[in-house]
Amino acid sequence: MDTDALDAARLLAEHRLPGIVVTDAQGRPTTVLPASQVVRFLVPQYVQDDPALAGVLSEPVCDRVATTLRGRTVRDMVPDPPRIPAAAADDTIIEVAAIMARFRSPLVVVTAGAELVGVITASRLLQATLQNC
Amino acid sequence: MDTDALDAARLLAEHRLPGIVVTDAQGRPTTVLPASQVVRFLVPQYVQDDPALAGVLSEPVCDRVATTLRGRTVRDMVPDPPRIPAAAADDTIIEVAAIMARFRSPLVVVTAGAELVGVITASRLLQATLQNC
Repeated sequence: MDTDALDAARLLAEHRLPGIVVTDAQGRPTTVLPASQVVRFLVPQYVQDDPALAGVLSEPVCDRVATTLRGRTVRDMVPDPPRIPAAAADDTIIEVAAIMARFRSPLVVVTAGAELVGVITASRLLQATLQNC
Repeated sequence: MDTDALDAARLLAEHRLPGIVVTDAQGRPTTVLPASQVVRFLVPQYVQDDPALAGVLSEPVCDRVATTLRGRTVRDMVPDPPRIPAAAADDTIIEVAAIMARFRSPLVVVTAGAELVGVITASRLLQATLQNC
């Protein structure tokens, strides 16, 4: 949650991730930050409401990055309230699919107790689903 | 739109894609099919409403694949109504970001006239945004 917002954006960009898991200071998963949420964060609300207005936004994109990301943390960007689409390590594929469907999340966090053990993306879930059918 | 639903699911799985662009018979982009939408399609509505019920769903996952995907086409899976988050090839980064933000889509389709010229994911957009800042 305390990671620099710009560092988180770079992590998503460099690894081409659909989202990242956000943890608290103790490493416990707290929420998911989708890449699309960071993109939304860069766009002023009035432009989100009417994308045609992006054309009149004369501010260079690096200035937008500076005004929205610099000096901020992941806490400022995460969806509110924090929602953690979490599955247990021994859940079935259908249980994971149900959690992903309900949260409309690009990924599901896998935990064993309070410990983060991994992440499953939608395409990885499809791969696991189809490989033996 | 007429592609077999199972083939589309395999395409998402094999290439680990967050989504694919759906075209009409003439190759014109019509809508976007997110991987998460295919996952949702596999899960019965009552389980989406209450993921705890996934545990009582005794049907093996391959049977779910058979009942939901076999004999269907992409047309059966796409969000209704079809929505095409499309940008023009000469749009700015902020314009693409605005379209992505508005549609809450994992990808934006790039067109030149009616022709499909490419696809931009959220993480690719962040990469382009950050590389010169």
